Amino acid sequence: MPDLPLATVRDLKAVEIGTGRPFASILLLRKVGTKTASNGNAFLSLELGDRTGTFNTNLFGDHPQFEATKALPEGSAVRVEGKLDYFNGRLSPKLAKLTPLTEAELALPGAVENLVELAPENAESMWTEFNATIDAIPHDELRMTTRGVFEEIGETFRVCPAAIAMHHAYRHGLLEHTLRMARAAKALLPLYPEVDPSLVLAGILLHDTGKTIEYEGALATRRSRKGILQGHVVLGYQLVRKHGLKARLDADRLERLEHIVLSHQGEPEWGAAVYAATPEAVFVSMVDNLDAKMGMVQRTLRQATDTDEFSERLPGLSSQLLVRKIGE
Amino acid sequence: MPDLPLATVRDLKAVEIGTGRPFASILLLRKVGTKTASNGNAFLSLELGDRTGTFNTNLFGDHPQFEATKALPEGSAVRVEGKLDYFNGRLSPKLAKLTPLTEAELALPGAVENLVELAPENAESMWTEFNATIDAIPHDELRMTTRGVFEEIGETFRVCPAAIAMHHAYRHGLLEHTLRMARAAKALLPLYPEVDPSLVLAGILLHDTGKTIEYEGALATRRSRKGILQGHVVLGYQLVRKHGLKARLDADRLERLEHIVLSHQGEPEWGAAVYAATPEAVFVSMVDNLDAKMGMVQRTLRQATDTDEFSERLPGLSSQLLVRKIGE
Amino acid sequence: MPDLPLATVRDLKAVEIGTGRPFASILLLRKVGTKTASNGNAFLSLELGDRTGTFNTNLFGDHPQFEATKALPEGSAVRVEGKLDYFNGRLSPKLAKLTPLTEAELALPGAVENLVELAPENAESMWTEFNATIDAIPHDELRMTTRGVFEEIGETFRVCPAAIAMHHAYRHGLLEHTLRMARAAKALLPLYPEVDPSLVLAGILLHDTGKTIEYEGALATRRSRKGILQGHVVLGYQLVRKHGLKARLDADRLERLEHIVLSHQGEPEWGAAVYAATPEAVFVSMVDNLDAKMGMVQRTLRQATDTDEFSERLPGLSSQLLVRKIGE
Amino acid sequence: MPDLPLATVRDLKAVEIGTGRPFASILLLRKVGTKTASNGNAFLSLELGDRTGTFNTNLFGDHPQFEATKALPEGSAVRVEGKLDYFNGRLSPKLAKLTPLTEAELALPGAVENLVELAPENAESMWTEFNATIDAIPHDELRMTTRGVFEEIGETFRVCPAAIAMHHAYRHGLLEHTLRMARAAKALLPLYPEVDPSLVLAGILLHDTGKTIEYEGALATRRSRKGILQGHVVLGYQLVRKHGLKARLDADRLERLEHIVLSHQGEPEWGAAVYAATPEAVFVSMVDNLDAKMGMVQRTLRQATDTDEFSERLPGLSSQLLVRKIGE
Amino acid sequence: MPDLPLATVRDLKAVEIGTGRPFASILLLRKVGTKTASNGNAFLSLELGDRTGTFNTNLFGDHPQFEATKALPEGSAVRVEGKLDYFNGRLSPKLAKLTPLTEAELALPGAVENLVELAPENAESMWTEFNATIDAIPHDELRMTTRGVFEEIGETFRVCPAAIAMHHAYRHGLLEHTLRMARAAKALLPLYPEVDPSLVLAGILLHDTGKTIEYEGALATRRSRKGILQGHVVLGYQLVRKHGLKARLDADRLERLEHIVLSHQGEPEWGAAVYAATPEAVFVSMVDNLDAKMGMVQRTLRQATDTDEFSERLPGLSSQLLVRKIGE
Amino acid sequence: MPDLPLATVRDLKAVEIGTGRPFASILLLRKVGTKTASNGNAFLSLELGDRTGTFNTNLFGDHPQFEATKALPEGSAVRVEGKLDYFNGRLSPKLAKLTPLTEAELALPGAVENLVELAPENAESMWTEFNATIDAIPHDELRMTTRGVFEEIGETFRVCPAAIAMHHAYRHGLLEHTLRMARAAKALLPLYPEVDPSLVLAGILLHDTGKTIEYEGALATRRSRKGILQGHVVLGYQLVRKHGLKARLDADRLERLEHIVLSHQGEPEWGAAVYAATPEAVFVSMVDNLDAKMGMVQRTLRQATDTDEFSERLPGLSSQLLVRKIGE
Repeated sequence: MPDLPLATVRDLKAVEIGTGRPFASILLLRKVGTKTASNGNAFLSLELGDRTGTFNTNLFGDHPQFEATKALPEGSAVRVEGKLDYFNGRLSPKLAKLTPLTEAELALPGAVENLVELAPENAESMWTEFNATIDAIPHDELRMTTRGVFEEIGETFRVCPAAIAMHHAYRHGLLEHTLRMARAAKALLPLYPEVDPSLVLAGILLHDTGKTIEYEGALATRRSRKGILQGHVVLGYQLVRKHGLKARLDADRLERLEHIVLSHQGEPEWGAAVYAATPEAVFVSMVDNLDAKMGMVQRTLRQATDTDEFSERLPGLSSQLLVRKIGE
Repeated sequence: MPDLPLATVRDLKAVEIGTGRPFASILLLRKVGTKTASNGNAFLSLELGDRTGTFNTNLFGDHPQFEATKALPEGSAVRVEGKLDYFNGRLSPKLAKLTPLTEAELALPGAVENLVELAPENAESMWTEFNATIDAIPHDELRMTTRGVFEEIGETFRVCPAAIAMHHAYRHGLLEHTLRMARAAKALLPLYPEVDPSLVLAGILLHDTGKTIEYEGALATRRSRKGILQGHVVLGYQLVRKHGLKARLDADRLERLEHIVLSHQGEPEWGAAVYAATPEAVFVSMVDNLDAKMGMVQRTLRQATDTDEFSERLPGLSSQLLVRKIGE
Repeated sequence: MPDLPLATVRDLKAVEIGTGRPFASILLLRKVGTKTASNGNAFLSLELGDRTGTFNTNLFGDHPQFEATKALPEGSAVRVEGKLDYFNGRLSPKLAKLTPLTEAELALPGAVENLVELAPENAESMWTEFNATIDAIPHDELRMTTRGVFEEIGETFRVCPAAIAMHHAYRHGLLEHTLRMARAAKALLPLYPEVDPSLVLAGILLHDTGKTIEYEGALATRRSRKGILQGHVVLGYQLVRKHGLKARLDADRLERLEHIVLSHQGEPEWGAAVYAATPEAVFVSMVDNLDAKMGMVQRTLRQATDTDEFSERLPGLSSQLLVRKIGE
Repeated sequence: MPDLPLATVRDLKAVEIGTGRPFASILLLRKVGTKTASNGNAFLSLELGDRTGTFNTNLFGDHPQFEATKALPEGSAVRVEGKLDYFNGRLSPKLAKLTPLTEAELALPGAVENLVELAPENAESMWTEFNATIDAIPHDELRMTTRGVFEEIGETFRVCPAAIAMHHAYRHGLLEHTLRMARAAKALLPLYPEVDPSLVLAGILLHDTGKTIEYEGALATRRSRKGILQGHVVLGYQLVRKHGLKARLDADRLERLEHIVLSHQGEPEWGAAVYAATPEAVFVSMVDNLDAKMGMVQRTLRQATDTDEFSERLPGLSSQLLVRKIGE
Repeated sequence: MPDLPLATVRDLKAVEIGTGRPFASILLLRKVGTKTASNGNAFLSLELGDRTGTFNTNLFGDHPQFEATKALPEGSAVRVEGKLDYFNGRLSPKLAKLTPLTEAELALPGAVENLVELAPENAESMWTEFNATIDAIPHDELRMTTRGVFEEIGETFRVCPAAIAMHHAYRHGLLEHTLRMARAAKALLPLYPEVDPSLVLAGILLHDTGKTIEYEGALATRRSRKGILQGHVVLGYQLVRKHGLKARLDADRLERLEHIVLSHQGEPEWGAAVYAATPEAVFVSMVDNLDAKMGMVQRTLRQATDTDEFSERLPGLSSQLLVRKIGE
Repeated sequence: MPDLPLATVRDLKAVEIGTGRPFASILLLRKVGTKTASNGNAFLSLELGDRTGTFNTNLFGDHPQFEATKALPEGSAVRVEGKLDYFNGRLSPKLAKLTPLTEAELALPGAVENLVELAPENAESMWTEFNATIDAIPHDELRMTTRGVFEEIGETFRVCPAAIAMHHAYRHGLLEHTLRMARAAKALLPLYPEVDPSLVLAGILLHDTGKTIEYEGALATRRSRKGILQGHVVLGYQLVRKHGLKARLDADRLERLEHIVLSHQGEPEWGAAVYAATPEAVFVSMVDNLDAKMGMVQRTLRQATDTDEFSERLPGLSSQLLVRKIGE
């Protein structure tokens, strides 16, 4: 069985008469629950999946890895071996072996890519450019404030998605979206001299940092307790305030920077605490909106095949998108 | 002229052929602006008013009190003497004398009552009961957190209105509305044992404290810079967080207390940062809603005359209110 | 087979390799339809279920109980025996025997509880307290009006749910919600002296009585023809009007009582005929809203398990609810 | 002064230097209130107007007609004589004489027309056609039900406007709108054979009869107490139910007829108690909508002058209307 | 196998133990896609269906009709023979033979009726009446404009549905809805003399002609590229403009006719380019609304069985519909 | 009198006791209507104004310039001389002389600036840059299409405001807004390689060209008949289509270019005919939104005085704007 090529969930579901056929896969343990069968025996109900799909299966109390699997945290990556089986007409393989991946194995090229969607740009070079953008903020205390926040949350920020659904909803998506907003702002700043460049750049880099607390789970993202009870707008405001005070940022700029975080969602019904009421806050919320919408366009174009003319309807655009290239 | 009875703005406007008639009034200096007449001379444009109305008039550069008046802060209470006059058909008296009221004069019975609307209950006894309510919070750190906030903002809180327009929009209105919510909660707590009394009481007493920063101007209320840029929800959250940390409130309760403040407005489009997601937060937002609506009812009934059957349409109720007593 | 323990639908669905396994259950006959198979023979398509789930199966024309089952009204409770089977991957047991439960059997402790969700408080003691609340209405004709309505609809009211989905959507839910509103009102009345206690109490007890006509089916609730064509607001108004006239309630109070019924839903888009326009109507609609929301909280807490941190998203609260106890 | 031609309010306001100029007018006493001047004397504050405008003036305690005027009900038609005067730049004539019009004078041709807007069709002939439409309802009990309602409310119905603002908002407007709907229905019935003609005709004739109770004031219309507390939908339902029971209309048709009244407003937020759920109710609400919109078009075209190209923006159409004829 | 009676998809799904049972059906090839199995072989994934339902199945590379089937356009009608089979619990028959229907076969009575829903009126006689309606437009250039449009799009218009979902969503539905609107308009025109008959009739006949371009696929309807990128309102406007200019229609009428097309959807959020702002445009949009709603009623009544009391909830009416006849 | 300095309307209104005081002004004749006084004589009712305000006055039949003034088109610029006077408390000067300005006088520096607000950038240099932007569109037929449209409408486009109210609502505002969008697009294009530069640039330059037809009146802007009946989205689409066909633009690009115009308003309720469904259309609508919002910010900052902290509430931002510079 060690020689089996790794199969994705899509592969497993596509096979037509698969009962009993052996397979091996690298999968994410999305959910694990302990239940009691009608005969009184405990069993584990598992949800396993990767980028291409998800299935449910059970692991009974007499399985040699019952206790080890029960102890795995949700969101673990595991190597799974077993045989295809079906229950009530749905894929529900019998599992022979579950081995959690080591950090080293997860770091191997391609390992994470099959489990979760990744940002298309290289994460390392984005992170380098991101840090250079911080270093280039002209105003000293605004730069120090920004630096301070990312010293606290940098590692989480690097891998965090920009959303659970909707735009840039994949690993490194928050880094990608934030960096693209900074690039757009740098391109636009000469045209809007009434906005302060330091405030705009710090505001963009920091506006969504509350999402590093709102979301949790490195591979399988969900809203955390703090995320549900406070929301990323207030959490980001709190982060910015803490590091602004630490960097002795003057009260006027601190208030304007906090305001960018509090208002960047645009409308209260989309989560903004207040409407944008400074030139920089209006500017940042518009650039956010532009890159969020264009991020949906880019992801849809990446996923389109050569024969597609339109995508499925995209809720964020309220429309299908024409994905065929001009002149084709 | 010192013997003149004090006239309200409604009195001044009711008099039919008043040109030249002397008068004296205690008024609020709502706005003061420096303008330049077409002859190049500077003059002050003043807006003066009391509970019953408002008028505009000018004070020219050669008036003996020109400089003193120019220096008065907006929102000052002044004793005014002059003669009735009209410009473009509107009341615009010629002012002979403007004397700012001393603190002692403002404290005299009836002085403030004529300038601004007051809560109907006695402010002193409400304040005493309010402090007793704090002292009765069972949980030590929640009580200390609440006490800490009111040591910082107590004086402002006592006089603050609960709103600029809408419900409890008058001096001491915030104290009155908060106290009435606490009374309602105390009456209801035995019926809803799943909510924690300490958390509910602290949450109610603190939920609107951000309004002491959102609003400014003791007699003439307007939104402050902080109020526009952050909103009372975030400002109150910040106050609560600071004093919760100081009182070493445990992280679980602090998060739940902050959540009550962040969610009490009910819906994001009404200003809530997040939807209520704990039993106590749902309870507080419902009690807030109940007393806010009943506060509109009570104020409307107070203002009704014996011959009224219905009030004007109340925007907060989307209806006129039947103000005639049962059986009359 | 008589010795088989009774299995719930959740039990039947959990069993993994169940084909042919015998079972017995007490179930609700939710739907029964006559169809014709492609061979021209008639068969019954049955939907059966209990509190824990639902399944579909067929009963063919040659089954000894074909005619008896065809004649059963939808919503009947039946004892079912048979063997597990599956069709197209879904549970579809072969039924050997269907026996309708007698009234006596349904009245046995536990019988109804497994079929439908019940209010958590004891129905008998709630009903006693409810009647005492009627008797305690101070105003004679208001009390007689209220008494009159419940003499007409009392039995139906006792078991009616407060909603089909949403809050208090279970057997006795309407009695429970109405009683809890009355308790809340009694606790709050001393704080709001401008509302008339008799009118508020009668208004609360009567506000939702139209639902006894809007809904039908003792065990499986659906909207009746009258419910679809008129709605519970108008139906309740009609009930109240009839008994108010009978009790010779004075025209002023009758109009105010009818208005409470017509306006209690709050907003026309939620079903109110008019906006609340009397002090008592505003008060009742606010107490209704408070207890409806708290009812969702209470039911969610009851259904939570010890390991749950948050509930699923509750549509009525637009949020998940934190169900973990403070300090756990 | 008896020889003075009658002037409209528009005439009185157009005159440029009119102080002291004598005039005579037939006006509506819209509001009358007793006030106390700052000298302690009582005076009456009057609002007087006609189709063309409105003004305010005072009548002092020493005026010979002070007591008689104070006793006039609001909405009375009066003959007024006096001299033009202005207060605070607004027309505020000195009144010499106020004489209430007798019923006979009001009935004179042209008298009412100058005070309030009238339906363009002749009221008498509309009323004749309306009664013939009742008599032509084929189904006996539906015809008797309809006849019964109009025996009770006929006189009020004849003069009632169809709305306070919006469509057909003028004397006889309700009669006109209802009759036009009946004509439209008669024209359309052959095309929609699935709707029952008797039910449709009775439903149309009766759908808005609650407005005869919702509105009050023959010449100056406002919502009555019953109108505010119950709304015309419920009031009309009550009327129809009473006369349907009296005419022994069968339960099925009565329920369908009541449903037409309860649902004709279309959407709950526009006042419908329920959504239309029978073929006849859908049909009646659509015909209502069509004639209401066309009524706004017709009134706007009547009021347009030859040189107008577009009307003002009409709120009911969310647009200006092109009033120029084709080819002009 | 040629003797097999034709089975509908509903028949195929109803059969309980069907594996291996032969069948023959006339079906619509809704979707066809080429996929690669995990063994590297290509196969076709097919979606087939008729009026009564839909199923998916695969056709492998070694099937004799693999290439012929791959080349069939989506929306083709095919005669299918094969044996029942199931995959993952869902119907997934093994296909032995697929034969595209010839035009002649499709034209046979009953062929299309089983594949797609049809308008209830006879298409030929509707088309004759439709053309007579064009010929009866009094104004020459308006008649020529209308005639011109239907010379271009007539064949497509005849079979086009009036919608993909919602009202008149079936073959010939657009013809039926347009013709019924014309009949209703002719019946109503004498009652609304302020609208121009020629403009109204031309406007009605032309208002939805853009749908012949917005939708594509004779048997399986979907929005075309032009439909997604421009919408039927603009496409219809373009058609009308082209033929209006060709017919030398005067500029005033052309603008009013174009305006009817641009505004007939009523509200911008329903797709209108502008609000109706001429008498004729208001009239046409109201008649459109009336017949669209009545079309939903008629279709629901047609589909109801004798024992139904209410239909399912109809999204277009926001309600269930009472389908039981009066007095039954 | 020729020596009088020119006074603005704000100057005229500020003067306190001005009756009889001579003045001279350059004003816009906003409205002129012929009325009949109660003495039967005709007079002109004039509305005159400039950037700073507006007043009404009358010109009687015996005035030497009565006929000449009656013949002036609305929107004419006139030199006015007269004496201050008041009617009903409002400025209503007696006019001695009205002289229409010649084209040459209007072209003098400062003439138009006092009458209407101007874009802050120099119109000539904006126009030069605009034409260079057209010339730099890489794709030949897209450039020719764009060139063709501006050859037809260039002069009107140059002076047209971008809106009647809201953003860039001043002379040359449409040129300014369009040019700024093009600059922003050029800065952003390298960051969004999936959008086609030629299509984006042509789309931006053309997206609002329908406004040159939707608005009319060089100095006093209002919606034209075509604007009300068709809207600028459809009018611009028509312009683009005409010149695209003329320039033999390929069908694919023409459809995409038309789609940009049809979708640029973002949401149907804001006037879009369809939702943006191509990468370029999403991009253009986002850049449009960004520059529209920033245009409101820029105009508000220009109008702020040194002592202002916040602007008035801006409807387009749903907020007041902080206009104080950072650190002041």
